[in-house]
Amino acid sequence: MPIYNAPLKDMDFILNDVFKAEDFWQGNDDLAHIDMATANAILEEMAKFSKNVILDLNRSSDEEGGAQFSNGVVTTPKGFKEAFKQYAEGGWIGLGAEEEWGGQGMPKMLTVLADEMIWATNPSFMLYPLLSVGAGMALNNYASQEQKQAYLPKIYTGEWSGTMCLTEPHAGTDLGIIKTKAERNEDGSYDISGTKIFITSGEHDLSENIIHLVLAKTPDAPAGSRGISLFIVPKFLVNEDGSLGERNTMGAGSIEHKMGIKGSATCVLNFDAAKGFLVGKENEGLAAMFVMMNYERLSMGIQGLGASEFAYQNAAQYATDRLQGRSATGVKSPEKPADSILVHGDVRRMLLNGRANNEASRAFAVYVGQQLDITKFSSDAEAVKKANDRVALLTPIAKAYLTDTALNAVLDSQMVFGGHGYIREWGMEQCVRDLRISQIYEGTNGVQAQDLIGRKTIRNNGANMAEYITEIREFVATLDDSLAIKAATLNACSEVEAITQFILQQAKGAPDFANGVAVDYLHAVGLLSFSYMFAKISQAAQAKTEAFYQNKLILAQYFAEKVLPGLTAHIAQIKASSNLMMQLPEDYFTAQS
Amino acid sequence: MPIYNAPLKDMDFILNDVFKAEDFWQGNDDLAHIDMATANAILEEMAKFSKNVILDLNRSSDEEGGAQFSNGVVTTPKGFKEAFKQYAEGGWIGLGAEEEWGGQGMPKMLTVLADEMIWATNPSFMLYPLLSVGAGMALNNYASQEQKQAYLPKIYTGEWSGTMCLTEPHAGTDLGIIKTKAERNEDGSYDISGTKIFITSGEHDLSENIIHLVLAKTPDAPAGSRGISLFIVPKFLVNEDGSLGERNTMGAGSIEHKMGIKGSATCVLNFDAAKGFLVGKENEGLAAMFVMMNYERLSMGIQGLGASEFAYQNAAQYATDRLQGRSATGVKSPEKPADSILVHGDVRRMLLNGRANNEASRAFAVYVGQQLDITKFSSDAEAVKKANDRVALLTPIAKAYLTDTALNAVLDSQMVFGGHGYIREWGMEQCVRDLRISQIYEGTNGVQAQDLIGRKTIRNNGANMAEYITEIREFVATLDDSLAIKAATLNACSEVEAITQFILQQAKGAPDFANGVAVDYLHAVGLLSFSYMFAKISQAAQAKTEAFYQNKLILAQYFAEKVLPGLTAHIAQIKASSNLMMQLPEDYFTAQS
Repeated sequence: MPIYNAPLKDMDFILNDVFKAEDFWQGNDDLAHIDMATANAILEEMAKFSKNVILDLNRSSDEEGGAQFSNGVVTTPKGFKEAFKQYAEGGWIGLGAEEEWGGQGMPKMLTVLADEMIWATNPSFMLYPLLSVGAGMALNNYASQEQKQAYLPKIYTGEWSGTMCLTEPHAGTDLGIIKTKAERNEDGSYDISGTKIFITSGEHDLSENIIHLVLAKTPDAPAGSRGISLFIVPKFLVNEDGSLGERNTMGAGSIEHKMGIKGSATCVLNFDAAKGFLVGKENEGLAAMFVMMNYERLSMGIQGLGASEFAYQNAAQYATDRLQGRSATGVKSPEKPADSILVHGDVRRMLLNGRANNEASRAFAVYVGQQLDITKFSSDAEAVKKANDRVALLTPIAKAYLTDTALNAVLDSQMVFGGHGYIREWGMEQCVRDLRISQIYEGTNGVQAQDLIGRKTIRNNGANMAEYITEIREFVATLDDSLAIKAATLNACSEVEAITQFILQQAKGAPDFANGVAVDYLHAVGLLSFSYMFAKISQAAQAKTEAFYQNKLILAQYFAEKVLPGLTAHIAQIKASSNLMMQLPEDYFTAQS
Repeated sequence: MPIYNAPLKDMDFILNDVFKAEDFWQGNDDLAHIDMATANAILEEMAKFSKNVILDLNRSSDEEGGAQFSNGVVTTPKGFKEAFKQYAEGGWIGLGAEEEWGGQGMPKMLTVLADEMIWATNPSFMLYPLLSVGAGMALNNYASQEQKQAYLPKIYTGEWSGTMCLTEPHAGTDLGIIKTKAERNEDGSYDISGTKIFITSGEHDLSENIIHLVLAKTPDAPAGSRGISLFIVPKFLVNEDGSLGERNTMGAGSIEHKMGIKGSATCVLNFDAAKGFLVGKENEGLAAMFVMMNYERLSMGIQGLGASEFAYQNAAQYATDRLQGRSATGVKSPEKPADSILVHGDVRRMLLNGRANNEASRAFAVYVGQQLDITKFSSDAEAVKKANDRVALLTPIAKAYLTDTALNAVLDSQMVFGGHGYIREWGMEQCVRDLRISQIYEGTNGVQAQDLIGRKTIRNNGANMAEYITEIREFVATLDDSLAIKAATLNACSEVEAITQFILQQAKGAPDFANGVAVDYLHAVGLLSFSYMFAKISQAAQAKTEAFYQNKLILAQYFAEKVLPGLTAHIAQIKASSNLMMQLPEDYFTAQS
């Protein structure tokens, strides 16, 4: 069976040494009660839950075929119900939520690390509370006080859960063309009718009620994305006293059969004049939904990190135990029939790709988490503005780059197992299947790249990117000159700066230039970001002599020498004309080649 | 349901225009009876079989859970038996085999294209005849005349089938440590005892008998890979008159539950003093097995090509049909609610990655096929020597590079589908799962890279690589200067030449240097090889004005500008010190990070 041990020591290093979390917390009134001892105690609890409760359920739920559907009812895999109860009772659902509504008010830079452990050990399970937390966040930002009072406390106790209902059969990326209708009733409620697909946790048996957040259009709404409203559509209507009332006229028509995350119920939901309640104002639903969506997007990056850490731990253990071949520099274990495969440079290359990805992704998640904490807790308006810009710029990196690199890392870890990596019992192939969705859902990684290059860069003429690069340059200046990561990061700053200018120039004359180079740009910025994280890690480690820290400097150098050079290729590919692609007529693609 | 139409026009272009196949065939006595009309007729027949018979069985076999095992008996998925019968009766098993034993004597440069269609439509099915053909090839090269007479004709009619039994629980890459024993009997036969795992087609219901080719060690054999012998171990012993005799004391203990290729039975085989017959001489078994192994390795490349073509066709069709968003240069289909997603550069980028991979891989497969045909059919000893060197050099590229690029291409095609790519019914996620094994089996791609950099390059001091680069340079000189692929390929020649010299120098002082950079080197040589193929394609297209040919020049330019720049990154990564990786102590990898 697969193993997992939460990387608590590295988490402490990242929070304490790299991001000086305690100083940061002590500097904010709302966070001053949190210290590293509290943080580590929380992480240790989650380490136990992830290892002892949900890890084994991950394999068993996949083996039994995942969530089951019958006559509108979804049964979650064996053990999920008890685990969810335990999770809810532990207060984990509201870990980062407002204390006013029953949450624990913990900072994001801490909750991302707790989340990493659940993503690592059971991504299907994670998707149930995840949607609750996201729905809670959207409601907290946009719902009325009465709505918050009615829904939030029950969501954080786990008695109820949440969903986000966006996609329809014909409308995924392009929400402007959704068809779900909302007709206003005299009592102020709405009748919601339509079909939503790919609804994660859309129906299940873990909670008494499910609070669906549904995008729909009123009859007189403007066309396109400016005419979308957001509605609360509970599975069971809620009486004034908070008890459950009648069943709403909506339900699951089926669940999808998927490549992975089989334990997560992905539902087709049919709304048949179901009673819904407007959140915020008509036609302003997309903004509210994007609070939730942006939260989910950072979560997808953590899904990538979790999978990469899980796969790495198992591959490293396998490589240590597996005896095969001999070292080229002479037999290392003469008493054994063969040396461990760790004597082979190529095996180390695959493992170090994973290890470097884990450590950079974790630092990046905490970095973005800290920026989010600034936006939420800081009283310094300028700092909040700056952090908001940074979060906006880096959300597509967190979602797309962290999941793209995670897939590569997980594929490398699977390869370390040779043929055994392809066999179900080792759990590596499931990890690949479960992870793959992270690149697709909540806006495909291609769409994230469009967001980065368009809304987040071209629209502000590169100002956000320029500020980010300035921050990196200023930080890196504090590093020892002897560290390879210093020159490498400064060089990456210059490369990304220059290619950003190139893109801004090219985009002026050719409105479809950016689309074709967006993914290369996202990877270029992602590589720079990971280089920045290794610079931060190196600064925290450079003065310390213990092997734990010195090995971090070696890993940073490995990244600079063996991973970062990919930047050059992305730059060259952006510089090559992308007009070429658009020259080909549409029928070229399906014509007999 | 997924679609597939064999790319017959491109296959004709590759054979006829690029490789001038008819001239080549007419110049060889044994092939002079084959012309393009015959070749195209064969490919058209296979196009029908692949589309009409086995395509639908691919999805259904996966849905029903693949091959089933019960009490030592393997039942193949519904429809496989009838399809295999039809395949055998069509003479497809022996398409490239010697006419003396019932084969059709067709050249490899043609059979690779027929194989592509089966790999594209049903890789699980393909694995049954594949092992028969490989076993036939090993026997034809190393078995006695009596053995050939006894086994080959029945293999090519499909009455019997074949396997290769190498791997044991503790021994995969390192065959020198296998434990299966062969004890000589007085009658000259051997008693074979041991356990083999991961045996593709090791047990099934498609043929009356299964001829296992088994590696084992005699009691007094030298240690390591110099003491391995090869044995024929039939499932049913064969009487003198060719009829089936008693059941041999061997059989399947279980089958593996895998990520994909579920229709293919991957067996644990237990040999309990089973009767075996030596092939060739004792202790020389590995050479015979490698005839088969090298054949399978080229086949894995074709598996990659087939999957990439299949995924591309489905993605291109989906992109054409899927309406979502609007073109940045203005609405393209005002009569529709949205434009087709082909208006987005990023969608074209993903599709063109697939298309470029398909066309370069296909040309490369035919190129290697032609070299194999020269080794088999040419009477010019120097040409045979040269072709043998070329095949040896390029087999790891065919196996590993074509499958690595295929996985990327298939992942891109899956991504074109958005969320639908993750749902089973579209067949894209199965394509990813089925393809993934091609990078792992028959020697992992990491092991292929070791073969390329070690045995095929360092061992001959780069002579084979130098000859290959000379051939490329001479060919490319004939291209129009206006074609971007010309300068790009010449530049790639210089880059690969220089990095090969660098590797030869570095390897002298550091015996484990090569291992850590091998995969980067394989990808560098792979990129050069694909560039060479696009140079060949461009030369055949440059004088022709029809869109079919002009579009090939655009695709070649796309490759030069958008794919080939990856070469720079691999070169930089090779140049970076790999000693760094080896500095870390073994326990670093499993220590708490």
